[in-house]
Amino acid sequence: MLEKLRVEVFKANLELVERGLVIHTWGNASGRDPETGLIVIKPSGVSYASMKPEDMVVLNPDGTVAEGKYKPSTDAPTHLLLYKKWKTIGGVVHTHSGYATSWAQAGMAIPALGTTHADHFYGEVPCTRKLKKREIDVDYELNTGRVIIETFKGCDPLTVPSVLVNMHGPFSWGTDVNNAVYNAVALEEIAHIAMNTFLLGHSKPVSKALLDKHYNRKHGSNSYYGQNKK
Amino acid sequence: MLEKLRVEVFKANLELVERGLVIHTWGNASGRDPETGLIVIKPSGVSYASMKPEDMVVLNPDGTVAEGKYKPSTDAPTHLLLYKKWKTIGGVVHTHSGYATSWAQAGMAIPALGTTHADHFYGEVPCTRKLKKREIDVDYELNTGRVIIETFKGCDPLTVPSVLVNMHGPFSWGTDVNNAVYNAVALEEIAHIAMNTFLLGHSKPVSKALLDKHYNRKHGSNSYYGQNKK
Amino acid sequence: MLEKLRVEVFKANLELVERGLVIHTWGNASGRDPETGLIVIKPSGVSYASMKPEDMVVLNPDGTVAEGKYKPSTDAPTHLLLYKKWKTIGGVVHTHSGYATSWAQAGMAIPALGTTHADHFYGEVPCTRKLKKREIDVDYELNTGRVIIETFKGCDPLTVPSVLVNMHGPFSWGTDVNNAVYNAVALEEIAHIAMNTFLLGHSKPVSKALLDKHYNRKHGSNSYYGQNKK
Amino acid sequence: MLEKLRVEVFKANLELVERGLVIHTWGNASGRDPETGLIVIKPSGVSYASMKPEDMVVLNPDGTVAEGKYKPSTDAPTHLLLYKKWKTIGGVVHTHSGYATSWAQAGMAIPALGTTHADHFYGEVPCTRKLKKREIDVDYELNTGRVIIETFKGCDPLTVPSVLVNMHGPFSWGTDVNNAVYNAVALEEIAHIAMNTFLLGHSKPVSKALLDKHYNRKHGSNSYYGQNKK
Repeated sequence: MLEKLRVEVFKANLELVERGLVIHTWGNASGRDPETGLIVIKPSGVSYASMKPEDMVVLNPDGTVAEGKYKPSTDAPTHLLLYKKWKTIGGVVHTHSGYATSWAQAGMAIPALGTTHADHFYGEVPCTRKLKKREIDVDYELNTGRVIIETFKGCDPLTVPSVLVNMHGPFSWGTDVNNAVYNAVALEEIAHIAMNTFLLGHSKPVSKALLDKHYNRKHGSNSYYGQNKK
Repeated sequence: MLEKLRVEVFKANLELVERGLVIHTWGNASGRDPETGLIVIKPSGVSYASMKPEDMVVLNPDGTVAEGKYKPSTDAPTHLLLYKKWKTIGGVVHTHSGYATSWAQAGMAIPALGTTHADHFYGEVPCTRKLKKREIDVDYELNTGRVIIETFKGCDPLTVPSVLVNMHGPFSWGTDVNNAVYNAVALEEIAHIAMNTFLLGHSKPVSKALLDKHYNRKHGSNSYYGQNKK
Repeated sequence: MLEKLRVEVFKANLELVERGLVIHTWGNASGRDPETGLIVIKPSGVSYASMKPEDMVVLNPDGTVAEGKYKPSTDAPTHLLLYKKWKTIGGVVHTHSGYATSWAQAGMAIPALGTTHADHFYGEVPCTRKLKKREIDVDYELNTGRVIIETFKGCDPLTVPSVLVNMHGPFSWGTDVNNAVYNAVALEEIAHIAMNTFLLGHSKPVSKALLDKHYNRKHGSNSYYGQNKK
Repeated sequence: MLEKLRVEVFKANLELVERGLVIHTWGNASGRDPETGLIVIKPSGVSYASMKPEDMVVLNPDGTVAEGKYKPSTDAPTHLLLYKKWKTIGGVVHTHSGYATSWAQAGMAIPALGTTHADHFYGEVPCTRKLKKREIDVDYELNTGRVIIETFKGCDPLTVPSVLVNMHGPFSWGTDVNNAVYNAVALEEIAHIAMNTFLLGHSKPVSKALLDKHYNRKHGSNSYYGQNKK
C-alpha cells in the first residue's frame, strides 16, 4: 500500500538527519497521497539507523492506522490537522533544528531581513502564541496544530511554508514531502543568517518592493526563475 | 572478562569523537556491569586513533584495577563515586564539548527554555558550586564527584542526566554507557540552542505545564512516545 | 562550443556547494572566454544533483543565448554588466553564504580588521547603497549590476574582488571562474572572523601600513609570496 | 635529506586543513631536526591539493635554503627566530583559524576561563603588542618573531605553547611539528569556548589553585595523567 510514498517519506526523514536538522529521533516527516488522502508518517521513537521504508505508518485522515505495525509519530495529530485544514499541502516536517528552534524559544518571528528570506517566504516566518495550560494538559498535539492554523488565519500557507511554535520549534510544509524538507532546510539557513544579522545590530525588514520582487520572480504568476515551470 | 562491555565502552568513546563532542583525548566514557558491579573505563591519555577494545580498563568499585594493562582515566574517581551513590545508573560520560563547557565556564545552569530541553531534562541542567581550594588541592577528582552528588541531593539523577561542573565541563550519565552518550549528545545540542536563545534576548524557562507535558509524554508513567516501552 | 570553460564553470558551481557556500540552488558562477568574450553561466533553478557540464548556458555579451537548451541564471544581467564594465575580470560568483549575507543584510561594509582580510582585500569589502523602488521594480538584476559598478567607481575591482549587495548578499569576481570561487570562499571566512571580532567588542580597522604590507607582499609589484609569479 | 621529517611536516600541513584550521594556503607548519638543527618548512603559496613531501623546503638556521626547489613560506623568518631563541621547541605552526584569529583581531589575550584551557595552557594565551609602522615596513616577518619573543620574556614557551599576534592570528609551537599541530588544534577549540563564555557574560579567569591542579596533573613533575610518561 502506497509503496512509493513510503519510500519518499522514509528518505525524507533520513534527509533531515543528513542535512543536520535532526539528531537522535528529534524530528518527523509525513506525506499525503493525493489520490486517497491517506497520510504516511514516521513511526514514533524508532532509531534512524535501523528504520526501513516498511516501518512507515499509513494513517487515515481521522488518525486511525490504515497500515503499519508501529505507532505513528507522537506529533501525528498536529500533522493531520494541517492536512485537514490546508488542502493544498502534501507534506509536513517537524524538526528541532538549532537556529529555527532558538527563535521559537525566544518567542520571536523571523523578520524578512533580506532577499534570501524573500526568495522563500513572502513575509516574516511567524511565531505562534503560547498555548494555555489547559491546551497543554489535554489534546496537546492537536492544540499545537490549532494554534498553527490560528496563526495563519487568512493567509495562504504555501506563501510562508513554515511556522515557529512558541517555546517549541519549527514546522514546515509544502506541496509534497520533498518540498516540505526543502522548506525546512531553507528555514534553518534563514534563521541562522537572521540571528547573525541581529547580532550585528540590524533588525529592520526589507521594503515591500524588494519582498515582492524576490518572492514573485520565483513564485509569482509572472515568475522568471527556473525552467518553464508554468 | 566482560568482553561485550569492553566493546561497548570502546565504541562509546569513539562515538564521542564522531559526534564532535571530543577532540584529542578530552573525554572519557565508562559502563557498569549490572551483574558484577565492575566498571569498564577508557585508559588515561591513550590516542583514539590507536585505542582498541582490549585497552579498556576494568575497575573494582573501590578503584583498584581488576584487569587491564593501562592506568584508567584520570577522572575515574569521579565516575566511581557516581556509580557508588547512584545505583540506577549504568554509564557515565565526561566531555569538554564546546557549548556545554561554555555554560560551565560561565558558572550558569542551563534553564529549560523550550520543549527540546523538556523532552530530555526534567528541569534546568544545574551547575555545581565552585570547589574550594582545599577540595582542589587534595582528592580533586573525588571531590568533583562529591560536588555533583551534593548538587543532586534529593533528586533522581535519571530525570536530569547531566550536570555542569563549575569552570570545568559537563558530565552525563544514563542507564548504560550508550544512554550516557545519548544524553551527552542531547546536552550539547540543548546548550547550543539555549545560548542562541540568550543571544536573542530571551532567558525565561518554560511553564511547569509544558515541562511536565513534554517530559512525561516521553518518560512518565503514562508516556505515549515510542513503541510499547512499558 | 567552449567545452573546457563549460566544465570549469560546472565544477565551480559544484565547488560552491562542497565548500558550504550554497544550499539548494542559491548561487551561480560564470566564466568569460578570453578569446571570444562569450560568457558561460549556470542554468536557472536546475538542481546541483542532476546538473551536467552540457547544461551550462553560453551567452553573448548582450545576453542572448549563443548555445544551450536552458534559460540562464536569473542573475545573468548582473554578471553581464560586470563583465562589460570590467575588462580585467574573467569570472563572477554570487552566493547567499551565511556570514557574508549577514553583513549584507545589516547593510554594513566588512572593515579590514586584520591581516587575513588584508591578504585578500585591499581595504573594506563595501556594501552597496539600497536600490530605490523604481530600480527594484524594473530591470532589477541589471540595476543590481549598476549599483555594484557605482560602488566601485574609481577603484580597481581586482584589488577588492567582492561586494555586499545591500539586503541581498555577496558577489565575488576574479581573473577567471576559479579565482572568483577562491575569492568567494575567502570572503565568507573573513566575514565570519569579522563578525566574531565585533562580538568581542572590536571594530577598528588595521593601520594603512599593515594593510599595505600584507596586501602588497601577496599582490603588489614587489610581492614576495608564492613561487615566481612575476 | 631529512626524508622522515619532510613527510612529517608535509602531513602536519595537510592536517591543518583536515582539522578545519586552514583554508586555501592560509597556514604553514615547520619542524626542526634535533640532530642537525635544520628546519623543514612548507613552500610559499603552493596548493595543498598538489603539494608533495619532496616540495618541503629545508632551511639552514640562518634562513638560506639547504635543499628544495621552492621558496619557503613567507613567514619563515618568524619560524626561524622562534627556533633560534627557544632551544626546547621542535615545531612551529601558523594558521588563521577562525576563533583564535578573532581574538587576535580584537587585540585580546584569551584568559584561562576553565579547566579545558588549564589542561593545555598554564595561564592566559597572550596577545602581542601592535607592531610599529617601521617594524611593519622593514623586516616585517622577523619583527613578528621579535614581538612574540618579547611577549614571552621570562616565560617558558612550552608552558603556554601559543600566542596571538595582534591584528594577525595565532602561532603555536611544541616539542615537534606534531605537537605544534596538536597545540594549534587545542588553541582553536579553547578560543571558541572562551568566546561563547564571554557571550554568556563571564570573563573571570579560574583560580590559581584550579589552574595549577589541571596544568600540573597533566604536565607537572608529579603528573598523573596518561601512561608512564615519566
